[in-house]
Amino acid sequence: MAFSERVSRLKSSLIREILAAAQRPEVMSFAGGLPAEAMLPKVEWAAMPLSMGQYGMSEGEPALREALAAQARALGVACEASQVLVVSGSQQTLDLAAKLHIDVGTEVMLEAPTYLAALQIFQLFGADCITVPLEADGPDLQQLRARLEQHRPAFIYLIPTFQNPSAVRYSEAKRDAVAALLDEFDVTLIEDEPYRELTFDGGSATPIVSRLKKASWIYTGTVSKTLLPGLRVGYLIASPDLFPHLLRLKQSADLHTNRIGQWQAQQWIGTEQYRSHLSELRDFYRDRRDRFQAALQTHFADIADWNVPQGGLFFWLTLRQPLDTRTLLAAALAADVAFMPGEPFFPEPDQHPGHLRLNFSHIDPARLDEGLKRLAGVVREALAAKAA
Amino acid sequence: MAFSERVSRLKSSLIREILAAAQRPEVMSFAGGLPAEAMLPKVEWAAMPLSMGQYGMSEGEPALREALAAQARALGVACEASQVLVVSGSQQTLDLAAKLHIDVGTEVMLEAPTYLAALQIFQLFGADCITVPLEADGPDLQQLRARLEQHRPAFIYLIPTFQNPSAVRYSEAKRDAVAALLDEFDVTLIEDEPYRELTFDGGSATPIVSRLKKASWIYTGTVSKTLLPGLRVGYLIASPDLFPHLLRLKQSADLHTNRIGQWQAQQWIGTEQYRSHLSELRDFYRDRRDRFQAALQTHFADIADWNVPQGGLFFWLTLRQPLDTRTLLAAALAADVAFMPGEPFFPEPDQHPGHLRLNFSHIDPARLDEGLKRLAGVVREALAAKAA
Repeated sequence: MAFSERVSRLKSSLIREILAAAQRPEVMSFAGGLPAEAMLPKVEWAAMPLSMGQYGMSEGEPALREALAAQARALGVACEASQVLVVSGSQQTLDLAAKLHIDVGTEVMLEAPTYLAALQIFQLFGADCITVPLEADGPDLQQLRARLEQHRPAFIYLIPTFQNPSAVRYSEAKRDAVAALLDEFDVTLIEDEPYRELTFDGGSATPIVSRLKKASWIYTGTVSKTLLPGLRVGYLIASPDLFPHLLRLKQSADLHTNRIGQWQAQQWIGTEQYRSHLSELRDFYRDRRDRFQAALQTHFADIADWNVPQGGLFFWLTLRQPLDTRTLLAAALAADVAFMPGEPFFPEPDQHPGHLRLNFSHIDPARLDEGLKRLAGVVREALAAKAA
Repeated sequence: MAFSERVSRLKSSLIREILAAAQRPEVMSFAGGLPAEAMLPKVEWAAMPLSMGQYGMSEGEPALREALAAQARALGVACEASQVLVVSGSQQTLDLAAKLHIDVGTEVMLEAPTYLAALQIFQLFGADCITVPLEADGPDLQQLRARLEQHRPAFIYLIPTFQNPSAVRYSEAKRDAVAALLDEFDVTLIEDEPYRELTFDGGSATPIVSRLKKASWIYTGTVSKTLLPGLRVGYLIASPDLFPHLLRLKQSADLHTNRIGQWQAQQWIGTEQYRSHLSELRDFYRDRRDRFQAALQTHFADIADWNVPQGGLFFWLTLRQPLDTRTLLAAALAADVAFMPGEPFFPEPDQHPGHLRLNFSHIDPARLDEGLKRLAGVVREALAAKAA
């Protein structure tokens, strides 16, 4: 039995293990990034034509591509439907981008922290991950310039709007500055925006790709956070120099995205019904965010710091006395609480101890307080044991 | 803009171009492998639970995995549901297997001819493709042994039941012999069976993986040829040593397969309704095969040879006077006929001129005779031009 060299980099996924443990109904889970069941919209299937059962185009359904292009243009992204590729969830964009750009040893640039599953797939393909530290309003620009002067990354991967895990939203000024730097150094931008619509204060600056003048780009989104993740419908929009390659890679990966999910997404994108659903969703999650903030204040105010997220699905806590939060997992699960340790969101986990990612969208509000109380108890015990 | 070395092997897909040309309604297409529209079953969605809209497990829906394992066991494949991974069409099995096994320069073994899209993705990952010639009842066993003595392939990829493109079905004796050889040389088998259920004479020997005693294996199938390709639901079943790696690769590729398609597949697999549908499908395609054979006799009997397929979707013609059939495409399309040249089904296309793959499942029977007449005319003209 002969495996590829790649497989030696295929790590056991901590997320998988935590989510599996969190399946037990008694577990209060802050670990995943699941939409609240109550906010999954009721969808109708009766009108779907039988022809959606036939093979489809690798590019995706023409009407859906048009609707997605129109939606992106409304955000300031100059694009045509011909630049839109429907993918099997925006996770697939990362797979296609990795195939397009990464050989063993290829440098890529990421935020620190960054989306865990992006880090995993870029590393799987052998990328050398260079990071830029995130501040509350976006990346540290001096460090970004310094890195770009030292390195020649194949691309930079950014989640500028309610980042997973940090909830950071880039300011207008930093968006402009990042775009100017990427143009200056001619670095391809992959901009991942699953959380754009989940804004609680109404604000969300236009995408960075819309500010580029020269650099190549891939913009990617999904209906998973706003409609139904089970459809597995995401999309990418790419600059014309990248699109044909991504299309062929999509074809070789799975021929095309499932058409039934595409048809359903098409019933929503750009409609009044969708706008109304998004508005309800924002109200619902804003309320959950507020309750979570209140419970955090009660249980974590003396041991951790955090910013109140203005969108997305997560709080990102920083312990005042850092410890490796991975070591808290066993005790947390024993107390029927699940959370995501922060270390795996960095390419060098051991150098970044002391963060916790807590999802606020999925927990039953009736169990929120008890869950955070127990989690804080686990942290306190570990801190006490460390001090002893 | 920096691309991976891999992208230099990303060929323009001839299939894509032909299928795009064949979209014109006036074109009589023998090119694709599409199910007949008339045989797409009417499916019901009303009973689907809303929870199918939520994120699902990377492995697939538990009930569907159970049903697929039971179906495989009925074919003699000793397996449990824990070895079943639901994938986004069986094309994705090839992507996952390529990631698991192929580095640049890795040797893999294939039938000659073989499935074009498998060849493309293995080559994309940098495989060195070793081939074994197919005979009417399976591979040339002497050559297979000789190749296994000379090479150490990471796996062998076989389509033993109504192969695409050749329609070959391995005999019982050759299945046993192949299994024994793979055990002897400890070579992993990837067995691809999209056409198993489309048998016209009732026969189809049990899978080769069920005959292995020692070698690792991946068995893959799909509902695309028997239910609805637009669902994008396929599956793989793997030996326990391979499964955990394939599961992690699946997770990194697209998290999980769309659940709505999985739910629909689950309504059919193992049911009386499905058995009845398959029976109708076999009758329908057998009739189309018979009409196609009759029309071929009329127009091609003097210029080509072929075996009558006992299953699947294709006739594989061998011209008596070989010529590069890719050179026929422009003239064929000008005459509003599309077909698949045989050369791209071989790793060294130029060394295998003179085959045509003709799909008999999708053509409107009313246009069949005219289509084959025109295609034969294109071939005759090319032969005459060559002789002149």
